[in-house]
Amino acid sequence: MRLLVVNPNTTASMTALIGGAAGAVAGPDVTIEAVNPASGPVSIESHYDEALAVPGVLELVARGGYDGYVVACFGDPGVLAARELTGAPVVGIAEAAMRTAAYLGRTYSVVTTLGRTIGHSWDVARAGGLADHCAGMHACEVPVVELETDPRARARILAEAEHALATDRSDVIVLGCAGMADLADWLSVELGVPVVEGVGAATLEVEKLVRLGLRTSKRGEFAPPPAKERGPSLLV
Amino acid sequence: MRLLVVNPNTTASMTALIGGAAGAVAGPDVTIEAVNPASGPVSIESHYDEALAVPGVLELVARGGYDGYVVACFGDPGVLAARELTGAPVVGIAEAAMRTAAYLGRTYSVVTTLGRTIGHSWDVARAGGLADHCAGMHACEVPVVELETDPRARARILAEAEHALATDRSDVIVLGCAGMADLADWLSVELGVPVVEGVGAATLEVEKLVRLGLRTSKRGEFAPPPAKERGPSLLV
Amino acid sequence: MRLLVVNPNTTASMTALIGGAAGAVAGPDVTIEAVNPASGPVSIESHYDEALAVPGVLELVARGGYDGYVVACFGDPGVLAARELTGAPVVGIAEAAMRTAAYLGRTYSVVTTLGRTIGHSWDVARAGGLADHCAGMHACEVPVVELETDPRARARILAEAEHALATDRSDVIVLGCAGMADLADWLSVELGVPVVEGVGAATLEVEKLVRLGLRTSKRGEFAPPPAKERGPSLLV
Amino acid sequence: MRLLVVNPNTTASMTALIGGAAGAVAGPDVTIEAVNPASGPVSIESHYDEALAVPGVLELVARGGYDGYVVACFGDPGVLAARELTGAPVVGIAEAAMRTAAYLGRTYSVVTTLGRTIGHSWDVARAGGLADHCAGMHACEVPVVELETDPRARARILAEAEHALATDRSDVIVLGCAGMADLADWLSVELGVPVVEGVGAATLEVEKLVRLGLRTSKRGEFAPPPAKERGPSLLV
Amino acid sequence: MRLLVVNPNTTASMTALIGGAAGAVAGPDVTIEAVNPASGPVSIESHYDEALAVPGVLELVARGGYDGYVVACFGDPGVLAARELTGAPVVGIAEAAMRTAAYLGRTYSVVTTLGRTIGHSWDVARAGGLADHCAGMHACEVPVVELETDPRARARILAEAEHALATDRSDVIVLGCAGMADLADWLSVELGVPVVEGVGAATLEVEKLVRLGLRTSKRGEFAPPPAKERGPSLLV
Amino acid sequence: MRLLVVNPNTTASMTALIGGAAGAVAGPDVTIEAVNPASGPVSIESHYDEALAVPGVLELVARGGYDGYVVACFGDPGVLAARELTGAPVVGIAEAAMRTAAYLGRTYSVVTTLGRTIGHSWDVARAGGLADHCAGMHACEVPVVELETDPRARARILAEAEHALATDRSDVIVLGCAGMADLADWLSVELGVPVVEGVGAATLEVEKLVRLGLRTSKRGEFAPPPAKERGPSLLV
Repeated sequence: MRLLVVNPNTTASMTALIGGAAGAVAGPDVTIEAVNPASGPVSIESHYDEALAVPGVLELVARGGYDGYVVACFGDPGVLAARELTGAPVVGIAEAAMRTAAYLGRTYSVVTTLGRTIGHSWDVARAGGLADHCAGMHACEVPVVELETDPRARARILAEAEHALATDRSDVIVLGCAGMADLADWLSVELGVPVVEGVGAATLEVEKLVRLGLRTSKRGEFAPPPAKERGPSLLV
Repeated sequence: MRLLVVNPNTTASMTALIGGAAGAVAGPDVTIEAVNPASGPVSIESHYDEALAVPGVLELVARGGYDGYVVACFGDPGVLAARELTGAPVVGIAEAAMRTAAYLGRTYSVVTTLGRTIGHSWDVARAGGLADHCAGMHACEVPVVELETDPRARARILAEAEHALATDRSDVIVLGCAGMADLADWLSVELGVPVVEGVGAATLEVEKLVRLGLRTSKRGEFAPPPAKERGPSLLV
Repeated sequence: MRLLVVNPNTTASMTALIGGAAGAVAGPDVTIEAVNPASGPVSIESHYDEALAVPGVLELVARGGYDGYVVACFGDPGVLAARELTGAPVVGIAEAAMRTAAYLGRTYSVVTTLGRTIGHSWDVARAGGLADHCAGMHACEVPVVELETDPRARARILAEAEHALATDRSDVIVLGCAGMADLADWLSVELGVPVVEGVGAATLEVEKLVRLGLRTSKRGEFAPPPAKERGPSLLV
Repeated sequence: MRLLVVNPNTTASMTALIGGAAGAVAGPDVTIEAVNPASGPVSIESHYDEALAVPGVLELVARGGYDGYVVACFGDPGVLAARELTGAPVVGIAEAAMRTAAYLGRTYSVVTTLGRTIGHSWDVARAGGLADHCAGMHACEVPVVELETDPRARARILAEAEHALATDRSDVIVLGCAGMADLADWLSVELGVPVVEGVGAATLEVEKLVRLGLRTSKRGEFAPPPAKERGPSLLV
Repeated sequence: MRLLVVNPNTTASMTALIGGAAGAVAGPDVTIEAVNPASGPVSIESHYDEALAVPGVLELVARGGYDGYVVACFGDPGVLAARELTGAPVVGIAEAAMRTAAYLGRTYSVVTTLGRTIGHSWDVARAGGLADHCAGMHACEVPVVELETDPRARARILAEAEHALATDRSDVIVLGCAGMADLADWLSVELGVPVVEGVGAATLEVEKLVRLGLRTSKRGEFAPPPAKERGPSLLV
Repeated sequence: MRLLVVNPNTTASMTALIGGAAGAVAGPDVTIEAVNPASGPVSIESHYDEALAVPGVLELVARGGYDGYVVACFGDPGVLAARELTGAPVVGIAEAAMRTAAYLGRTYSVVTTLGRTIGHSWDVARAGGLADHCAGMHACEVPVVELETDPRARARILAEAEHALATDRSDVIVLGCAGMADLADWLSVELGVPVVEGVGAATLEVEKLVRLGLRTSKRGEFAPPPAKERGPSLLV
């Protein structure tokens, strides 16, 4: 089984981190390839970033050749469109992380990077029927690209998670950024509760769907897009 | 007051129709300019079309120079991102049409082009708190570009609207495509109920906001996007 | 275009203030008349006040002769009944203010007079599908008639609005009383966020509907009431 | 225990019918008095009727002297305001009937008089958290005052109830008009399911609250209305 | 009329307290019998406790011989299954208490024993459409069996109720455990708001249903369970 | 990894079928054991059946010794209680099937055995935030134990699924009974849409959670039940 993990931003070090997180949990017969678009925002922290990143994500998915796809940004950019472009399962890390958390406790809290992205994360939660399980969304206000470079980032994330558990009286922490994928185990030990990061959760969700022989329904909304002129700049 | 009406697809005849519909209702001191992106899909009938159309919409809004913006496609593509790029009001025609309908009766029915877009329209309705007012969404299955060319299009839309009123027991019809902007008056006479088309509704909504001196809040989610590298292909 | 702005209470100075707020935003071809019932409560701060004010509102609307009607009390008293009595658009200031706020940010906070009215305001928000956008309702506990006379009223409203923004993490303030119509511009400057007051919003909403040629649907719930004996004390 | 059952319309024969239905179920130590306002609509079939009926209802409640009050019209007109005027329990028949039905099956269907009232009945159901239990609302299109006089009324109501059970797959019928209070037993035998009429349900609900020593909370929204000038035409 | 009040746990002193609370409010022609299963948990403070208590509850209900049944544990364990076993009304104290509170104010707060049960109580509230009325659930962290023995229990419950009213801005307190049935009157005096305890509320609710001649609908979900082998350990 | 798949009913042939379905999808390093309680109902088709089956399920889970647990009945009986008894993940097939379906299309339809169980299935869907995705639940009215023996069962299920897709306009079919686990592939070919059966979905969900190192949160609701006397008849 070959899975493509798409990092929607163009920061190669983050793509490597994401690929590592996916590979660490994938089954023995699963090949993980992690890629990012050639051009686009270096991180996704606004609706504008997301809008500019999506065409690159879709170009990568449209090439085909994989048994399933992970979109590794917590806003799940382009997932619905990607499901039109392939019958292979496409899973975003926000949806996967929040659905996974629902098995582990009554409620979860999200800890994310910038507060300005929380509105969109609630939209993703609501669209997936996951808002009732979400007791709160909290920002550590560390920009995405500083997760790797700011020496205080870990401490801030831990503090925000502790605050979230106390304030929300929740059972589970969900990490709200693919760039936090390497922090889950450490945080879980520190906090004493399950910590779900979406890259691993989405990778195993796609693997699960492939092993079940399940593909995106092509009956209505996710049928291939009608053929038409769409301009010169993209491959499909 | 200068308003920019953006047709997110690249079909110039539709841009002209949309500009005409906006100009027909705009106040005497309002200048309407209707534009479309230089490149992108000729019509928007899938998540994929929408994803490819959004960067062009944002490029047009980012140029600035207007007192307000209308996004003239029933899926409201790019509206949230556009609100980050300018303090001037940005209104999508789906939100405007459905909010307007809420003043005219208890429930409304949407009549749109292709059934595959209905899921997304429900998402827009839910995000705006307008789903409780929506008694049903119905497709005439006429593709967007054939609205102007298919001689049976009008009859099909009328039949679908009659079916919607009978099935949904609703009070108002909302037209689910900017390309239907010229049909509202005729349909209203035929049906005996108010028919709301979004181009006019959104144009007057922006005009209303401008006259009230109201601009998008820059306090949180819609603050200007953080400065960063975003790739070579767009102006901002 | 002639619009009637109905102040449901009998305080003439408030009627003048409301009429001024409507006139300040109305278009050049729009004539605003502001009236209040001859008899009824001097202010509306309870379900009981509202119940006693409504017949007077309806008597004024039933006289006809206008192209549209604004009901200028934040509980929107009598709006549904008024829609039965005329085909001309009828808009309440609570619905108009909250719908307007939805275009300006993800969430809004209401700042109103007495806390005892907040339950009813939530009912209006829920009925209009606007509760998801409302991050909180807050009372300054200044009675309606003291808004004009209490020298501390402005400071209290400002303090409550600042508290609301901090607590609710909202983007927009909605003023929850027609008697606050003259405070919006000042508050917006003080707070640095959009402040919506309903009198102006509702006036331009009615103007918008009239210019779009849209009238209340007479198909079902808002058809004229059946003819019957209704007692001696009202005109219709 | 003395309970006042208020028929909000001015049709004396319906007041008698309602009083009889209440008396038939009241406990041995309960005195029922049934009254109607001296002036107002002869039946309530529109928002306008309801608005004109409410002041009369409140005038009767404000007189005091009873241990509890039933408002015997399916729209529960004036109930919230009445709760401000007295600490004695006030129960509307729509709320009581729908809450009662929730104990008897998963879902119920409402059968009412005119279709134009269904929107308001949904509002009452939603406000009370009872909409999830309601599988449908159905109109027999017999006007209220013809329930007693139209020889076909019973057959139409039975047919509509049978249709409701088949369409909605519901467990229970709720009668949507006080004027149907005498039909519940007959319909239940005909249909083979529980049929709830609100007059009896509300009467025993008030009796229950009185026996439990429970009165309306005066802590916030339902505290006595502030003293003020309210005009000459009502007693309080 | 003979009613059976079932205490689902096996603590006889609590059964006596519950029987006393029911008898104190029951009508003069009503015979109350209070029982508990012969075997099972001594208190119900977890999903596990509830699961083990339910078969005993059902065995008692299946014996028949009563006009109605009360299940006297705030999680309403076994109520849906019990409704399959008899046509006589079956009412749980959580549903009855929360529905009763809805007549007395806009919102209520629950004060219960252990925080770990609050998730389940929210499930009961949501299933009954009562979550919108519930402003908060609060635990005093006194285990059920210590309600009678811990001398500080009353003070803790009072403190938690005061905290709930202040935090939730609610109108009514609902007691979240049958073992608190004797505290309602005292608490109501201390707090100055209505306090609803479910044993009395459920007893009079069943009495109400019986007097109205209403029985559980046998049309669908609550028809008698199909005959089949179910193992040796239970009577039915 | 050792997983225990618990069939809550006592029909051994169904346990074998369920074990086969789990084994067919489990990873190479996963050992599946399928068991059923020694005593209890032969099938679960009512709330009563479910109540009697749960203690046996919990007894099997409480024995421990496995890395994760599947509860293989579409009502997910005992899952919440089982999560208290072990830190190893516990997944019910209804929750797993419906969450899985959410990745494959906008909406799904459930096809189940008896119509009387549909109310409970909606409760499970609502509790999991999956009701918005569910376009309808449909019964083929074949009792559980006749799924294997009735030669017409397959045809009826296929017909009901076709009817569901046409009526609900849904994208995916979810099979509403563990006894249908062997029909998914055949049905998917017949229908041309994804068909999700819960046994495989839940097995791979547990496997996923184990591989991610995620266990049930023990912070609140799902902490081990307090020690207490719980009667003689169960092991824990």
